[in-house]
Amino acid sequence: MLFIKNTTIVTQNNERQVIKNGAVLIVGEKIADIGLSVKLEKKYTKIKKKIINGRGWVLIPGLINAHTHAAMSLLRGFADDLPLKDWLEQKIWPAEAKFKPRDIYRGTKLACQEMLRSGTTTFFDMYWQPESIIKAVRETGIRGFVGPLIIDLGTVAVGPKQIEALYSRLKQKLSGKVKLTIAPHATYTVSEDTLRWCQSFAKKEGLLLHIHLSETEGEVKNCLKKHGCRPIEYLAKIGFLGNNVVAAHCCWLSDKEIKILAKYGVSVAHCPTSNLKLVSGIAPLGKLLKAGVNVCLGTDSAASNNSLDIFSEMKIAALIHKWDEKNPAAADAQTILDLATINGVKALKIDRQVGSIDTGKQADIVIVNFNQPHLQPCHSEVSNLVYAARGGDVSAVIINGQVLF
Amino acid sequence: MLFIKNTTIVTQNNERQVIKNGAVLIVGEKIADIGLSVKLEKKYTKIKKKIINGRGWVLIPGLINAHTHAAMSLLRGFADDLPLKDWLEQKIWPAEAKFKPRDIYRGTKLACQEMLRSGTTTFFDMYWQPESIIKAVRETGIRGFVGPLIIDLGTVAVGPKQIEALYSRLKQKLSGKVKLTIAPHATYTVSEDTLRWCQSFAKKEGLLLHIHLSETEGEVKNCLKKHGCRPIEYLAKIGFLGNNVVAAHCCWLSDKEIKILAKYGVSVAHCPTSNLKLVSGIAPLGKLLKAGVNVCLGTDSAASNNSLDIFSEMKIAALIHKWDEKNPAAADAQTILDLATINGVKALKIDRQVGSIDTGKQADIVIVNFNQPHLQPCHSEVSNLVYAARGGDVSAVIINGQVLF
Repeated sequence: MLFIKNTTIVTQNNERQVIKNGAVLIVGEKIADIGLSVKLEKKYTKIKKKIINGRGWVLIPGLINAHTHAAMSLLRGFADDLPLKDWLEQKIWPAEAKFKPRDIYRGTKLACQEMLRSGTTTFFDMYWQPESIIKAVRETGIRGFVGPLIIDLGTVAVGPKQIEALYSRLKQKLSGKVKLTIAPHATYTVSEDTLRWCQSFAKKEGLLLHIHLSETEGEVKNCLKKHGCRPIEYLAKIGFLGNNVVAAHCCWLSDKEIKILAKYGVSVAHCPTSNLKLVSGIAPLGKLLKAGVNVCLGTDSAASNNSLDIFSEMKIAALIHKWDEKNPAAADAQTILDLATINGVKALKIDRQVGSIDTGKQADIVIVNFNQPHLQPCHSEVSNLVYAARGGDVSAVIINGQVLF
Repeated sequence: MLFIKNTTIVTQNNERQVIKNGAVLIVGEKIADIGLSVKLEKKYTKIKKKIINGRGWVLIPGLINAHTHAAMSLLRGFADDLPLKDWLEQKIWPAEAKFKPRDIYRGTKLACQEMLRSGTTTFFDMYWQPESIIKAVRETGIRGFVGPLIIDLGTVAVGPKQIEALYSRLKQKLSGKVKLTIAPHATYTVSEDTLRWCQSFAKKEGLLLHIHLSETEGEVKNCLKKHGCRPIEYLAKIGFLGNNVVAAHCCWLSDKEIKILAKYGVSVAHCPTSNLKLVSGIAPLGKLLKAGVNVCLGTDSAASNNSLDIFSEMKIAALIHKWDEKNPAAADAQTILDLATINGVKALKIDRQVGSIDTGKQADIVIVNFNQPHLQPCHSEVSNLVYAARGGDVSAVIINGQVLF
């Protein structure tokens, strides 16, 4: 049993309560109680527990990175400041083609370590070689949703048959913290038949779907040319959409498409840094939230970010949407913290287990050290978390009640 | 004597050389030698010196924060997500009105500590109560350019008489690392006569001028209404401009004004985070650099940023200009690192003393710990510094040869 006392808790519960002079009791994997420190100290006097004084700390729920390609951390800084086409075709794809399973294991492990140290407790991955990824995820202790890529248009052919075989083989390697998903790459790299199969297989197996969607204006234009409608209209038409879909990017959306996303309960993994760096676009965050679409945050890969730091992603998201909407009140700190926590777990359908510091939930807790000049004074914990904190301010990470560092 | 060996040095010299397996010898306040570690180790075998193994570190010149109001770090997170007018009139100004000299000393000291820890070795300040600021700056050991605010339109009247008296009183309190400047607040808060006086006094005393300029579109519109021309045209007309002027913000510029800035050698302190957060605008970085204007970086205050981390400012600058120019090759990593180092010292006219790791220069060196997951692998030091590093990665800061932490 672990008892953290005299601390500040940004619960992210339904009331978005911030408890000062608070305490949390962790029993096994779960949060057994939270409340005022003085009260809980009295209540649990007689119980044997490890006591930690959390003065100067702020406890937050684990952050969620809802779109990344972890293994690509090997390509951090490998190719920057290039037009998208040159970046992909001349640099990234040739480099990826040389990746061996061992590289993917090492790249993923590096990424998991980076994510853990900067407060991410759960990530949603999309990449090749799921065996290598699962090994890395298990060794680091992070929660990982592993999405084997499907591409069957063009040169790479990984389709239903390979995926079905993979799933039956991999199922037994999974633990409670590692889950399989299906990741058809995009509408322009996966055939209509395979996209339909993905959703039917996902429904049968109870899996999440992970797809790149409307990342660039060119993608939308090509879709209009090829299918006579925009990407989200196309996916709705072929029966791909559902509340198990997490769509990354979604920069270029018509009002009609926003309504479609809301209607089907699709979640959007918003990746502002990558979208700016590659000049892909800016997702219409305000409109999406207003329409009731669940939006969460992703870093995309370290090849296009170039970090996996959700704190940085929060600040950049807030800044760019204030500017984009020409409204300093837009994308306020609480909304942005929600994107990185509670909306992330909603997208991954684990909101009943994690995503807030609440009695009965699994203990996924990040300890942020506020006892540093750049986090003082603290007029608002939520403001300091979104606008002033950095990944390096994380002192400790707890997942499923286990202190990972 | 201090000898750092087996390290990587991002020199920022004229050739922008990066030395791997390098070493630097610091004697007194100065960089006595730099080069390959094996060579320098042999060359200085017999000299008694403190040897530090810098494996895993990257040494960079001290970062320059060319526009801030340090004392306002007391208002970090005090008022976010508000329209500019409400933010200023209902929150910031009333709070500032209550500041006592002791508050300004404490706020400045906090800011200096934050800046030092995140690798800033020199800052350009603009605020009231210079005595309190100078005290804080001297105690922390940072290089500070202290600019007492001048406002003589509206309710606050601090004009030439007060400033002259202040200068003669403060001159003796200055050390080599603390310098006085003159900081007329803006064209709309300082009278024409006083602006003229500022430049003549600055020329007489050899001082820098620090002014807010063309921050918002409204400022430009009001200037057109009042003076019949845009702010920079107005300042040129009244003889205010010169190569001793550092103009903060400069978001709203005509092509003609960009030419004027270049002609007079005015430096621009670009503050992208604050400009986005308050929805002020985006400075035309590409056009300014193309015209030959010296552009450096500033954080503005922690009330509108909300941190004083130049690493964060570099990343946000790169991202926003790629997007703004619709060109992923714009604002490349080397250009952005230049803004934060060599361009900063040019603006402050201390480029002969600091700003690069070069033999003969004052030793202002920041040690960045690259031995962390988010800075590995390192395909390019400059890329990792701009796109992946954070203020918290700074392990040590050396100013004038003195290790400050």
